[in-house]
Order: sequence, then C-alpha cells, then structure tokens
Amino acid sequence: MTGVNEIASPFRSTRTSDTERQEKRAALLLAAVRMFNERGFHATSLEDVAATLGVTKPVIYHHLGNKDQVLFECVRIGLHELQDAAELAKATPGTGLDRLRAFLRRYAETIMGDFGRCVIRTGDEVLSPEARMKFRALKREIDDALRAMIAEAAADGSASIRDVRTTAMTFAGALNWPARWHRPDGAQPAADLAAEMVEILCAGIEPRG
Amino acid sequence: MTGVNEIASPFRSTRTSDTERQEKRAALLLAAVRMFNERGFHATSLEDVAATLGVTKPVIYHHLGNKDQVLFECVRIGLHELQDAAELAKATPGTGLDRLRAFLRRYAETIMGDFGRCVIRTGDEVLSPEARMKFRALKREIDDALRAMIAEAAADGSASIRDVRTTAMTFAGALNWPARWHRPDGAQPAADLAAEMVEILCAGIEPRG
Repeated sequence: MTGVNEIASPFRSTRTSDTERQEKRAALLLAAVRMFNERGFHATSLEDVAATLGVTKPVIYHHLGNKDQVLFECVRIGLHELQDAAELAKATPGTGLDRLRAFLRRYAETIMGDFGRCVIRTGDEVLSPEARMKFRALKREIDDALRAMIAEAAADGSASIRDVRTTAMTFAGALNWPARWHRPDGAQPAADLAAEMVEILCAGIEPRG
Repeated sequence: MTGVNEIASPFRSTRTSDTERQEKRAALLLAAVRMFNERGFHATSLEDVAATLGVTKPVIYHHLGNKDQVLFECVRIGLHELQDAAELAKATPGTGLDRLRAFLRRYAETIMGDFGRCVIRTGDEVLSPEARMKFRALKREIDDALRAMIAEAAADGSASIRDVRTTAMTFAGALNWPARWHRPDGAQPAADLAAEMVEILCAGIEPRG
C-alpha cells in the first residue's frame, strides 16, 4: 500500500501564496485519507497525520478543521471524483452501453483510489448528523447518474435490463467492494481489475441474438 | 429495522440449566449484533446492550466476555451461517450452475440477516490482531467455497466463466453490499432482493446458444 511517508511535504517552504496554501491543504488531505483507509477513522489521530508531514496538529486545524471535518472533506473529494467519472462517461460517443461501460470502469478505478476508497470505507454512523445528510445526498447523485445511464442503455436497445434500480445496486456493490480489499501495491493493477469486473457485469446485459 | 427492544428477555427466569444458559447467550448476542449494526462498534456500549434485556454489563462479561470478544463472536456466527449456506448449496441437485445459484441466493439472504450484516460492516481494523487473523481465515474459507462452486459450474459446462477468481470477487461484492444499505423493515424483502440480484449476476454466465 502506498504509504503516507511517500507524500512530499510542502511545509518546508516559507512562501504563502494561494498556490502554496492549496498544496499544503492537498498534502494534508492525502496524508489523512491514507491513514483513515489504513487504520480506520477511530484509530487515526491528527497528531500522527501531521507528523507524517513534519508538522503539528494545529497546522491541520488551521488548514482543514477538526477530525470530523477532515473526514468529511475526504469523502466529499471522493464523491466529486465519482461525479467527474459520470460527466466524462456521458461525453463518450457510441451507444448507451458504451457510455455505461465507460462510467463503470472509471467508477471502479476511482473507488480503488485514495479518496474513493475512503467513501466506501466510511460508514454513515461515523459522520455527524449534518455531514451524514450531505454524504447521503452526494451518494444519491452518483446513484441517480448510474441509474440514468442504465436506463439510457436500455432505451436505445444496447442493453437488456431486467430492473434498473436493482441492476444499479448490484453493479455498484460489485464495484465498491474492492475498496475493502484491493491494495494499491497488489499484483493486479486497479485499471485491469476494473476492466475485468465491468466485463463480467456487462456480459449479463448485452442483448442476446 | 428490527429493534433491539423486540428481543424477549430470558433473564427473568431463575432456571440455570444448560438450555437456559444457551438462551441467555443467544439473546445477548442478538441484542449486541443489532446494536453494532445500527450504531457501529465504537458507538456501542455493553451497558446499553445489557439494558435492552434488563440486565447489567457484568452479565454480558459472564456470558460472552468483553466487547472485542462479543464482536468476534458475532462475526464468527455470521461466517458460520455463510458456511452452512455453502454446505446446503452443495447438496442441491442439478447442474453446477444450479448449485452456484442456490449458494448465491442463500449467501445474499444471510448477508441481510443480523449476523451476516455484522460480518460485512466490521472492518478488519476494528478487530484485535489475533481475532483479525481468525476472521480472515474464515472469510477465506467462504471465498474458497464460492470459487470452487464457480469452477464446478464452468467444468460441467453449465456456466461460461471468464475468470474464476474475479468472478467470485465481483459476485461476492455485489451480494455483500446490501449489508450496508438494505433495511430489514424495508419495502423489498431480503429473499426477493437476493433472488433478483442473483439473476442479474447469473445472466452474464449462462452459456449463450
């Protein structure tokens, strides 16, 4: 697994431009999300996260807020990456099934990334009630995008769909699961695994004839 | 969701036979697993679990041990239920695909039960190192059983399989996912959802012709 120690620390610089602030924020988020994914939210301390970049906890408070806020920011980034995957897939030429396949592949690859992994590994119950509502609303947007793409593939005849809602849940579940076991340094690269899983799922919806 | 308050308390009896002890143990485990599933492991206190049955925390210590031990017992029961599902499916007459379908359905139904749900909702990182090793070994047995059934369906020609390992991971992921969102009191009964998901997955491995 890609370790937190491999993140280059931008805290040695004394520049204070917006770009510098963004770089510091990004490095802190990456260190935090990797530790959340490795140790779990409860076992992660912001002191330890800060230490991997050679800074102290108040630096994290300054840039990102408290631990709950850091976690929410991590899942928010992951969910935005999934939304970007949906937007990119919508622009894919070809049939509805071509667009669905493109989305599913990018979805699976994103889920195996640092922030996507955190979306899946974070249970609703860990978040504050307010963050939980936002988390669920963002997840619902991804789910809606997936359902819409499945429905469009059914509508243009490029896929044969039994039930849009259950197909969406089944496909999403299959592609979410690697977040719990796939290791970035494992034998099978994320892109290869994503492609193979998508072929297995889509074999069932290709029209027979 | 089926609440912890609906568990009949066997603690009002003064009998102390083995049967009574087993009933008390079972009631405590059910109360515990439901609270772990609803609140998460970290937010669950054994005091609260005990209170739902009108007893105190030392009663749980006496029957089950500490909170880590209670959690491990819950996931152990869930994994044994999954093993039972595999054993039952192996005895199903018909083709390899018939047996695989039977396993996948029971697997999905078990995952939506109290203890199966706990297996999926419990991250490795929550368990002690020793419990984690046992947890992984038991999960590997289930995974092996699933791979064997997929390989047998490929071998007797009743299923067309691209890759046994990836198919097993894809199917298991899809069927594990409802543990995170399906509610026992929801509109769709677990058995119906299980059957529909299994049809969606198996549509992709039925030989074409």
